[in-house]
Amino acid sequence: MNKWYNTKSEHNDVILSTRVRFARNLEDFPFPCRLDAEGREKVCQTVRDALSDVSGIKLHYIEMENLTHKQAVALAERHLISPEFASPQKGRALLLSEDESVSIMLCEEDHIRIQVIKGGLDLDGAFDLANKIDDLLDSKLKYAFDERIGYLTQCPTNLGTGMRASVMMHLPALSECNQMSKLASTVSKLGLTIRGSYGEGTNVKGDIFQLSNQVTMGISEKSALDNLKAITMQIATQERSAGEEFIKNVNVLDRITRAYGILSSARLLSTEEMLDLFSWVRLGSVYGINEADIGKINELTEKMQAATLACTYGENLTDNERDEIRAKTVRETLFNA
Amino acid sequence: MNKWYNTKSEHNDVILSTRVRFARNLEDFPFPCRLDAEGREKVCQTVRDALSDVSGIKLHYIEMENLTHKQAVALAERHLISPEFASPQKGRALLLSEDESVSIMLCEEDHIRIQVIKGGLDLDGAFDLANKIDDLLDSKLKYAFDERIGYLTQCPTNLGTGMRASVMMHLPALSECNQMSKLASTVSKLGLTIRGSYGEGTNVKGDIFQLSNQVTMGISEKSALDNLKAITMQIATQERSAGEEFIKNVNVLDRITRAYGILSSARLLSTEEMLDLFSWVRLGSVYGINEADIGKINELTEKMQAATLACTYGENLTDNERDEIRAKTVRETLFNA
Repeated sequence: MNKWYNTKSEHNDVILSTRVRFARNLEDFPFPCRLDAEGREKVCQTVRDALSDVSGIKLHYIEMENLTHKQAVALAERHLISPEFASPQKGRALLLSEDESVSIMLCEEDHIRIQVIKGGLDLDGAFDLANKIDDLLDSKLKYAFDERIGYLTQCPTNLGTGMRASVMMHLPALSECNQMSKLASTVSKLGLTIRGSYGEGTNVKGDIFQLSNQVTMGISEKSALDNLKAITMQIATQERSAGEEFIKNVNVLDRITRAYGILSSARLLSTEEMLDLFSWVRLGSVYGINEADIGKINELTEKMQAATLACTYGENLTDNERDEIRAKTVRETLFNA
Repeated sequence: MNKWYNTKSEHNDVILSTRVRFARNLEDFPFPCRLDAEGREKVCQTVRDALSDVSGIKLHYIEMENLTHKQAVALAERHLISPEFASPQKGRALLLSEDESVSIMLCEEDHIRIQVIKGGLDLDGAFDLANKIDDLLDSKLKYAFDERIGYLTQCPTNLGTGMRASVMMHLPALSECNQMSKLASTVSKLGLTIRGSYGEGTNVKGDIFQLSNQVTMGISEKSALDNLKAITMQIATQERSAGEEFIKNVNVLDRITRAYGILSSARLLSTEEMLDLFSWVRLGSVYGINEADIGKINELTEKMQAATLACTYGENLTDNERDEIRAKTVRETLFNA
């Protein structure tokens, strides 16, 4: 089955993906941190039952304790769970759709974390689907909800809508021209935050940044999404205009063409180098310098990270063997070579 | 006209070129360091006249003071003069054949330095041609010669035959496997020396080493050449056998294929990077990993160094412009791209 990143998407020159997640809790249970394994299992089972008949989406139920460490880390690499959720704990489960666009963490920080990922910029699509699942749960379960505050969550920063919406943006020109700290300070004044692709405190890899809303109280979901969308489009415009200038520089052109040359010829590729080279090749593709398929780059970005690759090709591979498979798969996928 | 490096040559998987040079002085003049400009000019003129009718070779007479600094450095880059000879001094001249295989420095350290370069391993060919020119000069001029000592030279290390023969060898496997210092100590016991391609005290670039005889007294030219040839062939055998193992390593294969990818795609190339990449691509070509033309690599190695390139494309080019032309020429020459 096609994954979410194989679908055609809008604005995918700059915007890789969109995510919307809702944090929800059940009134009849304490927050997960106050539950023992048995209590958490009860929560998981309750939600699982409530979601047994989502129309049109088949959700797989995965008990986290049954996964190997690599399998769990692979889910985090693909942003389907939080890195913290990958550590083994009894009484945690994941509901995951076949195309990996819907993932619902049970008994992470909150009882329920509904997440929807879409390719490119698709805040409405992601919100609508998350909302549909949320409505179904709401009709069957009793959410912890306060008329004045909104949804109750373990962390106060999620109180209110419990919604975090984000877009993953590729911003090589702004980043290489040292515009990111200025941009970060601007968006923070507008109630947003921009940071590395694995969230707070993570390094930026391949010039990929995550822009997300910070405010969940005193603002409707629609306003939050409209605000995020408007600022995303502004940043995309800035990136495109910076990019036009950027690629005129022969040093930049050299980085782009070399990245293409190396990806098409290397026999060993680390994840880090691959992501860095993808960033340049992607930039080149956007400006017609090469004909690299951005969809395939997105796909390889998901599939070729260390743990995900290990789950596909063997968990006991050495680093060198992984780097060899990665290089070969990239050559074959991007260059038919 | 074809240059010496465009000709087909033997053992060119390991041996790039062969050089033989004779140091000679005229009895009727003090050594150049004891001559003023007028005296040096007289020496130059005397030798020029004596060589006006070498059969089959057209020699251009170049007064060094008429060259720009770049033009002089370019000659040194191509090993046609010593680096020291490139500094402007009145009363120094160069006789240079069209194909650049014969170059005769006048009033360098000695009055006459006859040098012949041949592609690949060709000690006999290089010696015979140098000898022919030497015989002609000997028939017309009075050499400083002592029956017991042999040819008299300014530096005592050249006394006797006055001959230095050398081969330029590409030794990536021995070098990368850290065999060079052991090899250097072995050859020194055999009266030879091995060092960077620009002689004593120069850095090794692109794993290219110069192996030369050190002894000029108490040994005939023929013995010196036979000795050098035998040891050259032994080192070549060692390199080939080390190479067979070396290229089985995936890290080495990766270096080779990447080098090819970068050379075929880069828009900027420094001399140093080019030589390093050539080293890997050349190794790959020897073992059939790529189909790079070694003759073209030799040609580019001569033509694409900084000063030589500047003399062809413009002396006022910036570093960046030079790197751009170098990358473009390499792409076009090696890859028709």
